[in-house]
Order: sequence, then structure tokens, then C-alpha cells
Amino acid sequence: MRVVIVGGGVAGLKAALDLHSQGIEIVLLEARERLGGRILTDRTGLTAYDLGASWAHDTLTNELFDEMVADGDYELYYDDMKPYLVGENFSNDDFHRLKIEQVANEITKFIELREFSSLDIEDQSLQDVVKEYLDKQGKLLTSEQAEYAPQFVRHLELWHGIGWEEMSSKFSLVDNVGRNCLIRSGYDHLIQKMVDKLPKECLKTKQVVTRVEKSRVVVVQTADGNIYSGDYLVCTVPQSLLQLAAPNAGAIEWIPSLPERITGPLRKMGYGKLGKVVLEFESPFWSHLEYDRFLGISSPTTTTEKSVWNHPVLILNMFYISKVPSLVCFIQGRITEHLERNPHLAWEYFQPLLRKLGPLPLAPTNVIATSWTIDPFARGSYAACRPGDDPTDVIINLERGFGNVRFAGEHTILDGAGAVHGAWMSGKREAKYILKNL
Amino acid sequence: MRVVIVGGGVAGLKAALDLHSQGIEIVLLEARERLGGRILTDRTGLTAYDLGASWAHDTLTNELFDEMVADGDYELYYDDMKPYLVGENFSNDDFHRLKIEQVANEITKFIELREFSSLDIEDQSLQDVVKEYLDKQGKLLTSEQAEYAPQFVRHLELWHGIGWEEMSSKFSLVDNVGRNCLIRSGYDHLIQKMVDKLPKECLKTKQVVTRVEKSRVVVVQTADGNIYSGDYLVCTVPQSLLQLAAPNAGAIEWIPSLPERITGPLRKMGYGKLGKVVLEFESPFWSHLEYDRFLGISSPTTTTEKSVWNHPVLILNMFYISKVPSLVCFIQGRITEHLERNPHLAWEYFQPLLRKLGPLPLAPTNVIATSWTIDPFARGSYAACRPGDDPTDVIINLERGFGNVRFAGEHTILDGAGAVHGAWMSGKREAKYILKNL
Repeated sequence: MRVVIVGGGVAGLKAALDLHSQGIEIVLLEARERLGGRILTDRTGLTAYDLGASWAHDTLTNELFDEMVADGDYELYYDDMKPYLVGENFSNDDFHRLKIEQVANEITKFIELREFSSLDIEDQSLQDVVKEYLDKQGKLLTSEQAEYAPQFVRHLELWHGIGWEEMSSKFSLVDNVGRNCLIRSGYDHLIQKMVDKLPKECLKTKQVVTRVEKSRVVVVQTADGNIYSGDYLVCTVPQSLLQLAAPNAGAIEWIPSLPERITGPLRKMGYGKLGKVVLEFESPFWSHLEYDRFLGISSPTTTTEKSVWNHPVLILNMFYISKVPSLVCFIQGRITEHLERNPHLAWEYFQPLLRKLGPLPLAPTNVIATSWTIDPFARGSYAACRPGDDPTDVIINLERGFGNVRFAGEHTILDGAGAVHGAWMSGKREAKYILKNL
Repeated sequence: MRVVIVGGGVAGLKAALDLHSQGIEIVLLEARERLGGRILTDRTGLTAYDLGASWAHDTLTNELFDEMVADGDYELYYDDMKPYLVGENFSNDDFHRLKIEQVANEITKFIELREFSSLDIEDQSLQDVVKEYLDKQGKLLTSEQAEYAPQFVRHLELWHGIGWEEMSSKFSLVDNVGRNCLIRSGYDHLIQKMVDKLPKECLKTKQVVTRVEKSRVVVVQTADGNIYSGDYLVCTVPQSLLQLAAPNAGAIEWIPSLPERITGPLRKMGYGKLGKVVLEFESPFWSHLEYDRFLGISSPTTTTEKSVWNHPVLILNMFYISKVPSLVCFIQGRITEHLERNPHLAWEYFQPLLRKLGPLPLAPTNVIATSWTIDPFARGSYAACRPGDDPTDVIINLERGFGNVRFAGEHTILDGAGAVHGAWMSGKREAKYILKNL
């Protein structure tokens, strides 16, 4: 009995661990030189920066989080203060006086009502449904509220990694089951602890899987011509790669083809582009040091696509969180693509917003940017829904699997979708499935 | 065709209006000298004070609110700023630094999970379920959070009018469908507008109904021996009176008895005691004038029952809302009973808390207190759930009615339960029922 696992992120490692601990022979194939997948902690700067996943979500029901807490070896920090709001023409106090957050909460409720009160209503973009709200309730708002509450709602772009104009309204709302907790000491400790429990010879990096032939056994071929075979395959590559046709780099040729019940729904799913830019300085130039986060509110009238005022920005104040003079800026969609390709333009991009926080220095001492959109083995951040997309079909069919070809990862599970604990649970699920079907 | 309506609150008046406008002969019997029921606006002070209902709730789906907005004759104000928090040992800034609201939100989520994830879990008091939460998550909280977040959660007492120790956890959470809007110019305008559309001779005050005899016609007898009869009866007396056995003042003797399917569930429902005390001053002694509301956070260790630090208090800053130097203080349960019986003790009761807001004057210039708990035709504020209570049974059976005996009021409807628009919709519903069954 032998299981081939494709992908060395948290889903693949969890499946590997649970199978290995039950005496099953495993081999895990990772395309990159490193393990961890979309958990990637940068340790070249002033502190640990998680360039991939950085939070534990749903901490009331998050089994992985419970284990990490019991472990005691992680520094945890709930970064859930009210963020300090920064606008082009309005201050934090202005935004509070205008009560844009209260109106934004009502918009959220409006979306909930719209999407769940009637089963056959057509899904629209978040932007369009906000317009619907304004048509109905706009007369009860001040002009500033009507202009800026929608911009506040756009903070959801930084959850999903896509712009509100291309975001499903129905799946835009985030229901946090408990507080969100930053893994301040770096999520890579989780990966390291998992790797340490597995025999080194089972973990094979730089193995780019190009072809899977499925029969009673599953035969896997890599770009270098290596062949691995097993009774089961657990495929944990990101949804973006499952959606990709061979011979694109990172794509897998399936023989026989994956069934239409899997490929059909996959064609109809989007993929997010959440990015981060770390800016380090000699000392903090910004005031409001008592806030753990800043939220840049976009301007309703800015038309320059690549202006920072045209998009929401979430900024972690690392001086508060980790006592180092740096800011971690969250971006999405086309701006992520732009700045990941051109990290040297990041400082210029953020300047108009950062200037509102204090007198700017000449330049940051260090810039660290993510590269998920240019990474051929990621092609973005995580699954995201455009209007009309329905993740349920994809998830149900990937959970069901394809005989001895199994799937795991953040895109294959409902509870914890898009999150580390979801990926982890899906790896656990597949190990359990295989053990049950021995 | 003639309909007798018992109770001249918003439910009874709405039923009367809708029937009258269709040419049905109606007579409305009100026990008090005044109409309006639990809408009661005091106009003896510096501004209009609503001693009964004061908000429009669920304003995204509130048909009555839509009519009031279209009418244009009401002054509306969304009093949904973040309240300024006042504690015995902590300031507003302290509470924000401690993030007690964030923890309280997690407690809310915990309750939601507990009550709705498992269908057969036993309902407990809000206080006990908060203890359950602390058992599970307490290790992740600071000691101040573990002490004060539960006290913050107790603001729910001021929604339901009962203490957390006697409050159903399952029905404690409030799902606001849209922002809450204060009717700043007074809710009595709504009553007046309804009354103005009805012939005076149909509206009979000081008619205390003591006996209802139901056969093909319904014969109603009052304490003064008056007899009214109709093809239908619409009974809109508060739930507290339906729960009362004759010969208590305000109770109705039903012949034949109301069926067990109505009286059984009624026996198992609680009734809230929300109260208000208006304190007027020569000028505002309090600072933080830029806040529309203050929220008194109780202390976890205070044991004196009648200390203001033993209970949550919501205070409307009327200097912000209506430019007059007064405060409207919301209380619940036994404190409402205490202060409604002894309004002269109110100033002393609130002093320790008010002192935190500024240097106190010798005394208020005027005190106006509600008297719902001592009013024999109210006996409290509105329906409330104790642990194990289920309002659904009561509502379903009162909605169904008892042949030509119909029921309306805040306690007879699911959407808008406990609120003005719920009562109004239930009156509309019964008029429609009768018109359909002509």
C-alpha cells in the first residue's frame, strides 16, 4: 500500500502525516524547492512576515488552531482592533462622524437579504448590488455616506483578492466563526513541525508533476521524467492549476481526463489575487502608533486605475504588532499583478496614502513583495467567486474525488474554504478516507 | 358586518383603519383614557420623550417605516454611533484597548453556534452560556476581557427588558435587518395620524373589557357593564394580559375558554420590563457631547443588587440628539420595577455612573419615569423569553386565531416581534383576514 501526494502545502503534509503515522508508505511530490505551498514566511527582514496565509480564522471551531494553542509554541495575536481609517479627503474622525461603517453594515445586511431571501434571484457583482442598495435606501443617507460607505464595503476585496466589480455579491460576505488570530511568530513553524515528523526521503521537492495516469494504480510522471506510482493519489495542487490545461507550466495531463462533473464546475470558478508588500523603515514615520491596523478607504471619484485611492488597502502596523518599524500592505487583483511584477514601484504607489499617516522618509530601507501571481505553481492566492460562480459544485465534486484519485486543499472544503485550517482538514479527510478503504 | 377591536395601540388602530377604509363598521375599545398603548410620548419636558417604543427597527424591510419616510412628517435620527462606554474602574479608552467588544462579538458567535448547530441542545440562560464560552476560550483572553466582555454582552438586557440570568440564550441575539432609527419628533404622531383618519365615535376609551363570549357573534362586556358585539373580535391586549387570569384587573374572562393550544404556550412565555428614566438639567454637566449614546458597563464583582454598577444602562444623550440638556436612561427587570415605583430614587441610583461623565449638579430639574410595570394594562414592556421559552408556539397559535376571535399585537407575529412595525403588520394581517372571510 502506497500513496502518492502531489503538493507539499499544509493539505498535502497533513495527509502525509496522518497516513505515515498509520504505517502507510507515502511519497510527497512538491514542485518548488521549498515545502509549505501558500504558507511562506519571509525571515530576511526585521521580523517574520507571512507572505502567504497569516491568520487563523474561525477560531471558535478551528481544530488546527486548538492544536496550535495547546502546543504553546506559537506567538498569537488577535489583530482585531477597529482599524484607523485613512482617506484622500477624510480623516478617521470624519469617517466615524459620517457613520460610514454603520451604513456599510446595513449594506451587508441588504446583500444577505437579497441573496438569501429569494432562491432564484440572479447573482450580481458586489458593486452592482451596492448600487441597488443606494437606489432603495439612498434617500435616507447623507451624500457623504452614499459616496463613502460603498468604498468602505470594498474592504471585502482584501478578503477575496478580487475587485468588487468582478466579485460575486452572494459569496462576498464573510462570516467569521470567532476572532481572527495572527500567527505573529510565523506560520512556517507549523510547516516545520509537520515536516519534522516525516521521514526526509518521503518528501521530494522540485518534482513538477506533468501527467497522471489513473487505473487500478495511479502513475505519476514529472517534468524530469521521474515516475512514481501508488494505490492512491492525493492531489493538493491549487485550484488555479487544476483549472489549467496542459501543456502550460504547472498543468497536469490526466489520463483518462477528469470527469466533466469536476472540470465543468472548475471552469466556472474564479481565483483571487491577494498580494502583500512589506515596507521597512529606519523608524516609524507614521503616527497613530496605538492602532494595529490602518484601512485605506478608496475615493469614489478617482479614475486613475493605478492610484492608491482607486483601491482599498489594509495595512498592518508592525510597530504595534511586532515592535519593528515596518508596514505590511494588502492589495488585490490587478494591483497585485502590477506590484508583484514591479515591486520597485510599490513605494511610489503607496505614498499618497502613507503621507496621510505622517511625514514620509525618502524611501523605505527594504521592500519585500509577494509573487503569487507570477509564481507558476500558485497563479494567484486562492479560490474566489465571480458573479454567478458557485463554489459548492466544485467542492462537492472534489470532496467526492475520482476513485483512487483524491483531492485536498483550501478549494476542496466548505468549512474553512480558502483558509489554512480548511486545507488542513481536507488533508485529514483524505487520509481518513484512504485508511477506511484499505 | 361589525368588528369589535380590543386595545387602541398601533395594532388595534391599524386593524381599525384597514377595516374602516373598506366600509366595515368597527368599534375600538381602549381601557385607558388615552389611545396609543405602548406608544406613549411625553411632551411635558424640554423635548418629546418616547416612554414606550422609540425606534423603528428592521428599517430595510419595515413597511411602516417606508410609509413614515414617504410621509415626510417625522424627524428621523439613526442613533447608531458607537456608544461611549462608562465603567466603574475603566474608561471608554480602556474598554477599547481591552477589546471587550471584539470578545463580546465572539461570545455572540459562540451562542449562535451553540443554539443552532445542534437541534436538541438544552437552552440555558445567557449568563450560563457566557460561562460555557469562558470555559472554552477563557485561556485565550486577558483577565480583564474575561471579566468585562460578559458585562458588555449584558447590553442585551436592555433589548429584552430582563436580566441575563433569566434570559433565554437561544433568543437573546438580536438580528437587526437594517439600522435602527429613532423617531426624534415622537412616535405619537403616528398614533395621531391614524386616529385622525377614524370617526371619533368608533374609538371608545375607558372601556375595560372583562368578559368575551364567543359564539356566531362575539359579545364583549366591560367593567362598567357596557356590552358590544360583533361578527369578529380583534383582541390586541398585551401578552401580559392574555396570560392573566380573571378576576385580576385587566384580565379577560373567555367563554368558552381559549383553547389549550393558545393558553398552554402562553403559560410558558416571559414578559420583559424595560423602563426609562428621563433626567433633565439646567445645562449639560456631562462631557463627551459628541456621542449620541453612553453605555454603562456593569462591574463583575458588584454584589449590591440596587447598585447602578450591578446592571447595564443605556443612556441617550439628548443634548446631541435634540439639543436639550437631558439624558434618557434605559433600565430593565427588577430595577425598572424599583425605579418605576420610586422615581424619586432615580437620581441617587444613577449618580455613581453619571459622575464618571462630569461634575454632578445638585439635582436634576425634572425627572420623568415610565410606569409600565405598575400600569395594570401593560404589566411590563413586551414579550421576552426565559430559558426554554419558545415564542414560536405562542405566535403560530395567536396568528391562527380562534375562529371569529382574532389576535394582533407585537406578541402575535414573527417578523417584527416586540416592535411597532410588527404590531402594525399584525393589525394589517387581521383586517385582511376578516375582509377575505366576509
